Amino acid sequence: MFKLYGFAASNYFNMVKLALLEKQIPFDVVSMHGCQNPETLAVSARGKVPVLETEDGFISETDVILRYLEDTHPQTPLLPAHPFARAQVWTMAKEIELYIELPARLCYVEVLFGGRATPQALKAKALRDLIKGFAALARRGQFAPYVAGAEFTLADIYFLYSVDLAQQVAEQLFGLNLLDEVAGARDLLERLNGRRCAQRVAADREVDFPIFLERVRPVSVL
Amino acid sequence: MFKLYGFAASNYFNMVKLALLEKQIPFDVVSMHGCQNPETLAVSARGKVPVLETEDGFISETDVILRYLEDTHPQTPLLPAHPFARAQVWTMAKEIELYIELPARLCYVEVLFGGRATPQALKAKALRDLIKGFAALARRGQFAPYVAGAEFTLADIYFLYSVDLAQQVAEQLFGLNLLDEVAGARDLLERLNGRRCAQRVAADREVDFPIFLERVRPVSVL
Repeated sequence: MFKLYGFAASNYFNMVKLALLEKQIPFDVVSMHGCQNPETLAVSARGKVPVLETEDGFISETDVILRYLEDTHPQTPLLPAHPFARAQVWTMAKEIELYIELPARLCYVEVLFGGRATPQALKAKALRDLIKGFAALARRGQFAPYVAGAEFTLADIYFLYSVDLAQQVAEQLFGLNLLDEVAGARDLLERLNGRRCAQRVAADREVDFPIFLERVRPVSVL
Repeated sequence: MFKLYGFAASNYFNMVKLALLEKQIPFDVVSMHGCQNPETLAVSARGKVPVLETEDGFISETDVILRYLEDTHPQTPLLPAHPFARAQVWTMAKEIELYIELPARLCYVEVLFGGRATPQALKAKALRDLIKGFAALARRGQFAPYVAGAEFTLADIYFLYSVDLAQQVAEQLFGLNLLDEVAGARDLLERLNGRRCAQRVAADREVDFPIFLERVRPVSVL
């Protein structure tokens, strides 16, 4: 049985967890936080979560794990069959990751964890990138009703666990409502949050988030 | 026939170009620079290069294009056949992209383009990330002789077009020789640079780089 390493307050951990639940693949969770301890680095070369333990060994990086699951467990596919359509889903997922989630992440310590203020240069970069990232989502997103069209795909999983956090950053630091400028995005977020499997992920996150905050607070307020 | 949009001074453009050359897939190049002009945004929602034009439409994001090429042109594979081995190659590629190339990129304007100084907070982030990124490469890299083992793969393409630029940043801004701390990395770089297809990419880059510099200088010195 697969083992999924990570913690329920992590949005990337939750991307893999939701995919496993949606595909009805059994798994155990092993609690692990990203860090540079030797024990963690033995599992994950960069010290990041999530990690999937398979019978062959460990796999790091969310998109790599998700692709591996599609390759090995084609039931309940989360990608279209045609290579071009599949590429469109992956482009959407990658653009959400690189141009929405990662810029927002520069400001998580301040906005989500109540920690130290984001340095001005990082804040300025986050703002520039988030504006362009949401504009790209508005251009490419289908919202018909899912982000890449009629079917629920991996792109929706990236969307669900990225855009709400990014919107919190945009609102709190810059007074911007970038999410509502993307027609259909707010409805899709509600629809995705209503999925049974997503509700289970959210319930686990709600329990873990205060524990995570206690864990990072001594570091993040330095 | 495929059309590859971008320019020869772009390292991500060169990743796709090298894959096409190695796989002996014919393609035409269409000159395009990343920007937010309407014409560019019609091709690439985030205004980035490279973009691959296929008979079905455009595909953005380097890793997505590379995966599409493997899906549709299995000859001269640049990925192993077994899903776990394939995942290991993708993890290596992704870790190079996220934890080496992207941090170094924060400093390209200053180091590669002779433009304005990198703000201190971005420089500090680049330094922290590059040290951890190269350490991860040292832990995960096989260098036997290729980065993921005995075969030339997509991970070598990421390696070739990322680590030398990152090393330039590390050396010029921080006085660090991170590349030589990764046993086998310098030899592999030399071996990869010696490939016939890589030499063609390098020759085109040498012609384009001064043109690119002229193009960005008015912006980058602001």
